[in-house]
Amino acid sequence: MIDLRSLAQQIDVDFEGKPIAISGLNTLNDATSSELSFLENKKYVDQLQKTKAGAIFVTANMAVHVPEGSIAVIVDEPYLSLAKASKLFAPALFDIEAPAAVVGEGSYIAEGANLANSATIGKNCTIMPGAFIGRGAVVGDNTIIHSNVSIYHDCKVGSDCIIHASAVIGSDGFGFATTKLGTHVKIYQNGNVIVGDDVEIGASVAVDRAVFGSTEIKEGVRIDNLVHIAHNCVIGEYSVLVAQSGIAGSTTLGRNVVMGAQSGTVGHITIAPFTTLAARTGVTKAITESGKTFAGFPMMDHKTWLKLQAKIARLIK
Amino acid sequence: MIDLRSLAQQIDVDFEGKPIAISGLNTLNDATSSELSFLENKKYVDQLQKTKAGAIFVTANMAVHVPEGSIAVIVDEPYLSLAKASKLFAPALFDIEAPAAVVGEGSYIAEGANLANSATIGKNCTIMPGAFIGRGAVVGDNTIIHSNVSIYHDCKVGSDCIIHASAVIGSDGFGFATTKLGTHVKIYQNGNVIVGDDVEIGASVAVDRAVFGSTEIKEGVRIDNLVHIAHNCVIGEYSVLVAQSGIAGSTTLGRNVVMGAQSGTVGHITIAPFTTLAARTGVTKAITESGKTFAGFPMMDHKTWLKLQAKIARLIK
Amino acid sequence: MIDLRSLAQQIDVDFEGKPIAISGLNTLNDATSSELSFLENKKYVDQLQKTKAGAIFVTANMAVHVPEGSIAVIVDEPYLSLAKASKLFAPALFDIEAPAAVVGEGSYIAEGANLANSATIGKNCTIMPGAFIGRGAVVGDNTIIHSNVSIYHDCKVGSDCIIHASAVIGSDGFGFATTKLGTHVKIYQNGNVIVGDDVEIGASVAVDRAVFGSTEIKEGVRIDNLVHIAHNCVIGEYSVLVAQSGIAGSTTLGRNVVMGAQSGTVGHITIAPFTTLAARTGVTKAITESGKTFAGFPMMDHKTWLKLQAKIARLIK
Repeated sequence: MIDLRSLAQQIDVDFEGKPIAISGLNTLNDATSSELSFLENKKYVDQLQKTKAGAIFVTANMAVHVPEGSIAVIVDEPYLSLAKASKLFAPALFDIEAPAAVVGEGSYIAEGANLANSATIGKNCTIMPGAFIGRGAVVGDNTIIHSNVSIYHDCKVGSDCIIHASAVIGSDGFGFATTKLGTHVKIYQNGNVIVGDDVEIGASVAVDRAVFGSTEIKEGVRIDNLVHIAHNCVIGEYSVLVAQSGIAGSTTLGRNVVMGAQSGTVGHITIAPFTTLAARTGVTKAITESGKTFAGFPMMDHKTWLKLQAKIARLIK
Repeated sequence: MIDLRSLAQQIDVDFEGKPIAISGLNTLNDATSSELSFLENKKYVDQLQKTKAGAIFVTANMAVHVPEGSIAVIVDEPYLSLAKASKLFAPALFDIEAPAAVVGEGSYIAEGANLANSATIGKNCTIMPGAFIGRGAVVGDNTIIHSNVSIYHDCKVGSDCIIHASAVIGSDGFGFATTKLGTHVKIYQNGNVIVGDDVEIGASVAVDRAVFGSTEIKEGVRIDNLVHIAHNCVIGEYSVLVAQSGIAGSTTLGRNVVMGAQSGTVGHITIAPFTTLAARTGVTKAITESGKTFAGFPMMDHKTWLKLQAKIARLIK
Repeated sequence: MIDLRSLAQQIDVDFEGKPIAISGLNTLNDATSSELSFLENKKYVDQLQKTKAGAIFVTANMAVHVPEGSIAVIVDEPYLSLAKASKLFAPALFDIEAPAAVVGEGSYIAEGANLANSATIGKNCTIMPGAFIGRGAVVGDNTIIHSNVSIYHDCKVGSDCIIHASAVIGSDGFGFATTKLGTHVKIYQNGNVIVGDDVEIGASVAVDRAVFGSTEIKEGVRIDNLVHIAHNCVIGEYSVLVAQSGIAGSTTLGRNVVMGAQSGTVGHITIAPFTTLAARTGVTKAITESGKTFAGFPMMDHKTWLKLQAKIARLIK
């Protein structure tokens, strides 16, 4: 907990308001009365008016919309202030004083595996050489973590999972505020990743931790090699992500979505359950109807894409 | 070896036939008289009629095509039964009772390198810190394995090779059977990877092990960073795979094929020797004539692609 | 230093000229009087005529253009001779006799981190388990190197940087000379990588070392997961490379360039400052005007690309 006035002072913001204790940062929608939020873009003024946040970074002209019960902290660039404040809540990468990792019965921890203090490994797991399990991270039962996998602090991996070599679970999401001078201020990624049960993750996959809350890989998901999953994504149950596909931040896939090889999607959208994306599809907007197949970039219905290719074939004859 | 009746029992299949010993799983074409195979798709009935497999998972209506000398094991979903059976033949990831790794004369094994029991390293090799060489894996002479590379159990790397940091050789192929409920049952990947002599493999490349048999990278191949090679591919001699290209399962490249950056190909095809694929090419079907250059997605002759781009340029003027 | 006659002998080249000492290899433009260069393509004859190189591999018919003060070494295939010579100058991967790594005050070196002899770590750094810092490599102050990162020999990382798990800094560039028989001879990559201050590099990013000189990531750059940066690239200050983008060799980005997800660019070009490349853009030629936005493959002005998509949408109705 950091006192709001102390917080303001540490990031060079003038603030003389109420001295409340801040436990962390969050979005307008999700923030609780001990959390600090922000409004950067006035199109989210509705969210501002309904927020439960304890305090909010806002520009002077938007302060009028801050609801009663929330404290307005007036700043010129709310997103930049958020970035600066995020560093104050960044969890430690290690804790040399914490108790040693706990390992469940029947688990094999190879020589050369690295378990941080306060990590927890379930029963009958296999942790191969060079694998790293971070501070406070939890691995369920019967899970195999292959060599040189990295599971960052505070992330959770379920039971009956297999994570292949060099995969990374919980690296920082790609978040920063850009100043008027064009430099970038890191937004510390203070959330985590939660991987459900019976998930298989391929070699050199990267799953970023959430900025707030959790990036989620739900039960039964299958992820092929070299796939990128950005912060705050939710991958629905039994979805299948084929090699070299990528998902931008805060996108939610319903259950049993199939993303073909080298496909990708923009951030901040929802893809309906049972959607199939052909290889190389570039999803540019939300998919609301279940069970359809898409292709192309920009994405279109798969049948339309086939027709388009036929037209193109005639064009070049 | 597992008795066929015991195997059936373990995967909840009713089978009261001949008690033969099964040594492993394989395709209809390659299975021997001690191996178990399957027919999922009736278009392969020809292969079924000619198979030498000791036993075969088939649906009741296809049992009539099982050749004399092979045993039909009647199941509702042959591919799913194969998946369940594959687990019974999965090789161990480690063997704490096996003899320590053998290292040839003149080799440098850095502190922090992890050699599993029963691994074999040739002469004059360099194994850098964090590299992992799995159980039963073999590395030839004069080969350099950079830091944090993972070479899974039973894989073979030739002589005079260089494998760059974080590369993964022998991770599981992306194989599973999907149930009617949409859940996935892993097909254990019981094959390996064989890398020939004088091969260079870039940073964070992923080469999956075969489901049966071997994924092969032949002599003199050059692989750039972040390339994906799926299970059961064969990369012909002296082929060049540029960064971020990807090859789906069971595709065979002839010798001296060049795949440009970010190109890709579908699985289960053959690409003729001396084929050149421009950057971003998406190969959608077999290439049978040697020495040609392709581009685009769907792939077309490179000259045609250039004409198409010229037409498009006029279209937007 | 290697005597030129000894060098020639070691690579089976007939040479009976002046016995000068060669310190290394370089391009015609950058070579000094103790360096050896080459002319493969006669379109660079201007560079040959102005070179300061001590000696030059040239074909017999081009020897007349070698300037006074430089020694012509006549060969059939200059690029192939360069490749063979490059091996003679390859720096050692390790040095067991060098002094142990030096670690600055306040730095935390996790158990399981691997610091090579003669590496240097600044003050207040965090080096996580499985990270490898190579011989002669230097890390500045306050930098965080996450688990299983590899920093090859002789590379430099600035202060206030964060490098995420499994990233690779300094792997060999993708360089080789192809013989008439189609085999490949490695061009040893004898340069390094220099990463400036305040740079963040994502999980499983690969940055190749230069063949000569340095690959450079300048101050304030942000690199997302699974990005590929080839040898001899220069990434300008505050540039932003989104996930799975790739940059081919010897390309220079100006400051504040933004490369969208899954975008790519050819090699040997310059991209003007403040250029924005939409996701999937494929840059095919130099961008000389600052501050513009591009899209498509082949690349075009972003507005043109939007018009093209509108035309295509009408085409398929």
